[in-house]
Amino acid sequence: MVTETHFQKELEELKESLLKMAATVEEAIRDAVQSLVKRDSDLAQKTFGFEDRINKMELAIDEMCLKLLALRQPMAVDLRFITSAMKIVTDLERMGDQAVNIAERSVSLIEEPLLKPYIDIPRMAEIAQSMVKDVLDAFVNGDSQLARSVCERDDVVDGLNDQVVRELLTYMMSDPKTIARAVHLMIVARCLERIADHTTNIAENIVFIETGEMIRHRVKEEEKK
Amino acid sequence: MVTETHFQKELEELKESLLKMAATVEEAIRDAVQSLVKRDSDLAQKTFGFEDRINKMELAIDEMCLKLLALRQPMAVDLRFITSAMKIVTDLERMGDQAVNIAERSVSLIEEPLLKPYIDIPRMAEIAQSMVKDVLDAFVNGDSQLARSVCERDDVVDGLNDQVVRELLTYMMSDPKTIARAVHLMIVARCLERIADHTTNIAENIVFIETGEMIRHRVKEEEKK
Repeated sequence: MVTETHFQKELEELKESLLKMAATVEEAIRDAVQSLVKRDSDLAQKTFGFEDRINKMELAIDEMCLKLLALRQPMAVDLRFITSAMKIVTDLERMGDQAVNIAERSVSLIEEPLLKPYIDIPRMAEIAQSMVKDVLDAFVNGDSQLARSVCERDDVVDGLNDQVVRELLTYMMSDPKTIARAVHLMIVARCLERIADHTTNIAENIVFIETGEMIRHRVKEEEKK
Repeated sequence: MVTETHFQKELEELKESLLKMAATVEEAIRDAVQSLVKRDSDLAQKTFGFEDRINKMELAIDEMCLKLLALRQPMAVDLRFITSAMKIVTDLERMGDQAVNIAERSVSLIEEPLLKPYIDIPRMAEIAQSMVKDVLDAFVNGDSQLARSVCERDDVVDGLNDQVVRELLTYMMSDPKTIARAVHLMIVARCLERIADHTTNIAENIVFIETGEMIRHRVKEEEKK
């Protein structure tokens, strides 16, 4: 019984570390997008500073999971939880990389005149951040309903991305001087779309752990029809 | 001793499945890029057909790994190998998604007049395919030298991507009628760059398994200087 309790405590620590890593990634995304919107290069620099911290968190959680697998030899739901955690930290680390990409584009855009007020991109960012937060809450609490709601928000982000691309194409076609800036903004929108995709990958995985239902491939199949 | 041998046989099966999945992903990338270069929509359709197969392979290998973890309770190097395999199939599946993205852009581009003969994009694709093949060979054979050579090729792909973007920007600025096609081609180049990134993630993981050295974060640190 002592071992059991100790294992539960270790799982709680793992959950806390995952939530902390997700909160850090969420903050990196917020700062990156705020640096763009407020044309604030200090916030971009702050985003670059998150990269190293996020990388270290990934390594630490991976190590934690390997130790749990080796020493506790978990079965069934715990085994799935720990191996999923190892996949999730990879996704979180890549979301952090996307935040850095956004901050890099922001640095370039700050040097140029403002192309247009940003409306859809901050909205995309807000939704993406809520997805990061909710998907990790869903994971640690085993809440497949919340995970499903994350998948639904991915469609909204995809729709906003399409809208941003269409609008920027119009700018580019009517004035070639806007092309370089418009390409930067397209990349920013794509980074946010990729962040939403990563959270959706995690969400699909949660639904799978909780219900055994693989919604990802079902969704893709339905899209084809 | 019987169990030991049986476990070794299961590990061999896992390795074979990984190599088969990688070969399928490599083929999907080749077909997607060939559909673009040859303006052949049948090859694009063929790429779409790979998606389902690749998804099924991912699920099957994940299941295989979970069974090995639960039933064999592997330690040390085997534990790292199996958990890494679970991360690698996620990367492979996403590379397959990128091949589908390329094929989608190809379908749009076939409907328009040819913007320019493709030179750098097929070169990027060729290098990306060699990276997919070599990184899985490196993984199943524990060859950290080959894994390092994969990481080096990533810089070549990044360089080609920058070149493609610069060239396409010139087209867009001199003739707005080329913008829509140029954006499609930028996305294709970016998909190939993402594929190379996925292989590099795997390669870095292999170096870590084999040598305990985390080159990813070291490389990133050096880039910052």
